[in-house]
Amino acid sequence: MLEKFDGRKSRLQMNLVPDHKIGRNAMLLALIGQDEVEASILESITQSGQTYCLGKAGSMETNKVVAAIETAAKRTGVIRADVYRETHALYHAIIEALHGVTRGQVQLGTVMRTVGLNFSVVRGNPYDNDSEGDWIAVALYGTIGAPVKGLEHETLGLGINHI
Amino acid sequence: MLEKFDGRKSRLQMNLVPDHKIGRNAMLLALIGQDEVEASILESITQSGQTYCLGKAGSMETNKVVAAIETAAKRTGVIRADVYRETHALYHAIIEALHGVTRGQVQLGTVMRTVGLNFSVVRGNPYDNDSEGDWIAVALYGTIGAPVKGLEHETLGLGINHI
Amino acid sequence: MLEKFDGRKSRLQMNLVPDHKIGRNAMLLALIGQDEVEASILESITQSGQTYCLGKAGSMETNKVVAAIETAAKRTGVIRADVYRETHALYHAIIEALHGVTRGQVQLGTVMRTVGLNFSVVRGNPYDNDSEGDWIAVALYGTIGAPVKGLEHETLGLGINHI
Amino acid sequence: MLEKFDGRKSRLQMNLVPDHKIGRNAMLLALIGQDEVEASILESITQSGQTYCLGKAGSMETNKVVAAIETAAKRTGVIRADVYRETHALYHAIIEALHGVTRGQVQLGTVMRTVGLNFSVVRGNPYDNDSEGDWIAVALYGTIGAPVKGLEHETLGLGINHI
Amino acid sequence: MLEKFDGRKSRLQMNLVPDHKIGRNAMLLALIGQDEVEASILESITQSGQTYCLGKAGSMETNKVVAAIETAAKRTGVIRADVYRETHALYHAIIEALHGVTRGQVQLGTVMRTVGLNFSVVRGNPYDNDSEGDWIAVALYGTIGAPVKGLEHETLGLGINHI
Amino acid sequence: MLEKFDGRKSRLQMNLVPDHKIGRNAMLLALIGQDEVEASILESITQSGQTYCLGKAGSMETNKVVAAIETAAKRTGVIRADVYRETHALYHAIIEALHGVTRGQVQLGTVMRTVGLNFSVVRGNPYDNDSEGDWIAVALYGTIGAPVKGLEHETLGLGINHI
Repeated sequence: MLEKFDGRKSRLQMNLVPDHKIGRNAMLLALIGQDEVEASILESITQSGQTYCLGKAGSMETNKVVAAIETAAKRTGVIRADVYRETHALYHAIIEALHGVTRGQVQLGTVMRTVGLNFSVVRGNPYDNDSEGDWIAVALYGTIGAPVKGLEHETLGLGINHI
Repeated sequence: MLEKFDGRKSRLQMNLVPDHKIGRNAMLLALIGQDEVEASILESITQSGQTYCLGKAGSMETNKVVAAIETAAKRTGVIRADVYRETHALYHAIIEALHGVTRGQVQLGTVMRTVGLNFSVVRGNPYDNDSEGDWIAVALYGTIGAPVKGLEHETLGLGINHI
Repeated sequence: MLEKFDGRKSRLQMNLVPDHKIGRNAMLLALIGQDEVEASILESITQSGQTYCLGKAGSMETNKVVAAIETAAKRTGVIRADVYRETHALYHAIIEALHGVTRGQVQLGTVMRTVGLNFSVVRGNPYDNDSEGDWIAVALYGTIGAPVKGLEHETLGLGINHI
Repeated sequence: MLEKFDGRKSRLQMNLVPDHKIGRNAMLLALIGQDEVEASILESITQSGQTYCLGKAGSMETNKVVAAIETAAKRTGVIRADVYRETHALYHAIIEALHGVTRGQVQLGTVMRTVGLNFSVVRGNPYDNDSEGDWIAVALYGTIGAPVKGLEHETLGLGINHI
Repeated sequence: MLEKFDGRKSRLQMNLVPDHKIGRNAMLLALIGQDEVEASILESITQSGQTYCLGKAGSMETNKVVAAIETAAKRTGVIRADVYRETHALYHAIIEALHGVTRGQVQLGTVMRTVGLNFSVVRGNPYDNDSEGDWIAVALYGTIGAPVKGLEHETLGLGINHI
Repeated sequence: MLEKFDGRKSRLQMNLVPDHKIGRNAMLLALIGQDEVEASILESITQSGQTYCLGKAGSMETNKVVAAIETAAKRTGVIRADVYRETHALYHAIIEALHGVTRGQVQLGTVMRTVGLNFSVVRGNPYDNDSEGDWIAVALYGTIGAPVKGLEHETLGLGINHI
């Protein structure tokens, strides 16, 4: 029988560098998670003119996942809390990301399942044209399953919106 | 004004190593794409006991995206073409991945949009318990938008199923 | 900077007269709201053989919006409470109207949003043929948004059913 | 038996004046339709700093409805055709409005039904705070039903987005 | 190894008798299919004051399934073709039955799948109270799967509406 | 006026025999219900190599319906509780069956309705090819309606998955 594969031992890495693609950057940050992300990566994102935040949300209640991301994005200044249009843009990006996570019905506990998710929000202009202004990407990665440890599999989602 | 950020120049990399998480592996392969993935990564996935395939699908017709992935998975032997249960498992994983891509209605041209996607399929046992057997992950990454070049943004999705 | 536009000052009005279109009548009543609707309009609707009721419903719970409308329609005699078919017809019209309000997932608090709605129900025969019998229209108009005053925008919906 | 009710004869009118509520304005324009709207109403909307366009779209193909509205909004300058973010904002507002029209599945001919719709797009700042910038409202009103004249009932929808 | 189980050989039968439950009657008729249903069963349904029709529909196009059922119900007089309210009631019952068949997206060929279905429509009053009038049940039973013989599994659905 | 029709009096029966079609078998068991099913039928299913369980679930909470079925299937050994893949297969079959029951939104109390359901789970290989292995069918039959006795109509659903 095979040992459980661990790419880390073999020193192999997928080289994924952050660039202007805010969706890909956000997804990479969520796949790595706030506990393992290297400071140099985060600095390079900041230097590029993009802003971001990272966090975790685990819940059987969809609204708590939404609230955790909104709170993080406002507290870190990724979105302005004093204009509604930024909250509106973020909200729809979050719900779109949840479509990927839930795949059919944006529901968790009401259909007897729970999530444990890394989240990231990245803001910047992914286009060559400055007139496009800022866009926002919300990425989620983690597990979804029954409310019993281990009865779960991976899940992820991405939402993108102009802001 | 800032130069368009290019992480490549700064030599910074996010270190994401393939491991037993077939969903994360599949998403990483789709984020890199078949043209840029390094052979060593693919070898390490194979050595781990996982199987995979990679490809591209661009269409305004959802069924063509489904067909492209099914064809690739059968041709490369990731799934067996001679038993229906494997096609059934893959089909549902593809549709789940398309939920993330389409975020609400699994439709493309009928709601006036098109996609250009990298896809990957990874098969293996992501659990410690051998009895869990094989699972399959389908990842999609690319763009979605109006059928006009440039009027588009990133999108992605992941579907996972037992097989 | 412009003064906030107020059509009332300029004496301009859109002339929308109630007619046999129960959906349009219901939407107009919801857009005006029970506090501002003129008695003469309501009388003219009654004289036409149509029946109606008006009210308000604000909640984070979808079921409370449903209950408020059902209660009003039964209390005012717009539908008969003693046969199920009328409750059934109304229920589906309400849920259809909520599709317009929620645009994708018929959920409020579970996806972290709340509504403040005017509602109206209008019943009558919108067709030339008497055999078509009665139909019912449910219209909703108000705001949807985060559970914080001001973080909201307009929303509306209409459901129509034979009864 | 009652004559078919005609509010016009009775000289009764619902007084609905255009104001800063772009959703209500858009819905009123769609309820009236481009053939019957009075020039003075349109002027008052323009003077208020709001922009708009009006039109009709009849089809069994959802994408043709989307295309008709996008074309009108670009041709009349309600949105800029040279930046994607404006097309993106409008697209999502259209799809949201179609949720109200279709109530469950954003599909027409594929589920054997067709629409004949008035549409309107209104752009402006519906909030007191100038920082909220422009928002866009798409309203639809008309009929939905079987592809046979008369086998149809009223339908409507509204989508609102920041732009 | 077991012989393929055939209940017929063992003379065992599930005793399901038609009664006032139009949904159950419709589902039983669809499970049996028009080719195998016994005349005595159909007579007993007719004698009970219920009306019905039976047929088959196989297609990758949802609208063809809808059309086949509507045509059969009108041709056999289960619904009146000359009033819209009966077509409207039947249409919604069909779409509800298709939700059971498609389980998430009311789509067939556009998501690369096809159906072969028995259908039945049963009309009658399932309630004790005569005031409830007629209701209609649409039942579907057959297979859904890839457009390749054998790559399919069973599926069914039921829609019920007042008429 | 007609007496309420009772097929039982007339000694007519629809002859539906259990066979390898696990979906049809499951639906028949749910239509009959655990209180009326004859022991000989259940024995013949067991002898065929299929396993099954039967039960009832009434609730306004979707998650309680899910839990009731999962518990029954594990307690009776229809699925193994010690591997996640079997729970995963069953869970998706349950949710698919609930699509048929709820027809649009997998929600009960949150949209002001409740269900009283017979459920059955049948496991076996419905295909001629032994390599297809086991599949699982979940069938639901009962009533859905307002949380008031009698304000309800029939509903049903079926989900099928490889296991």
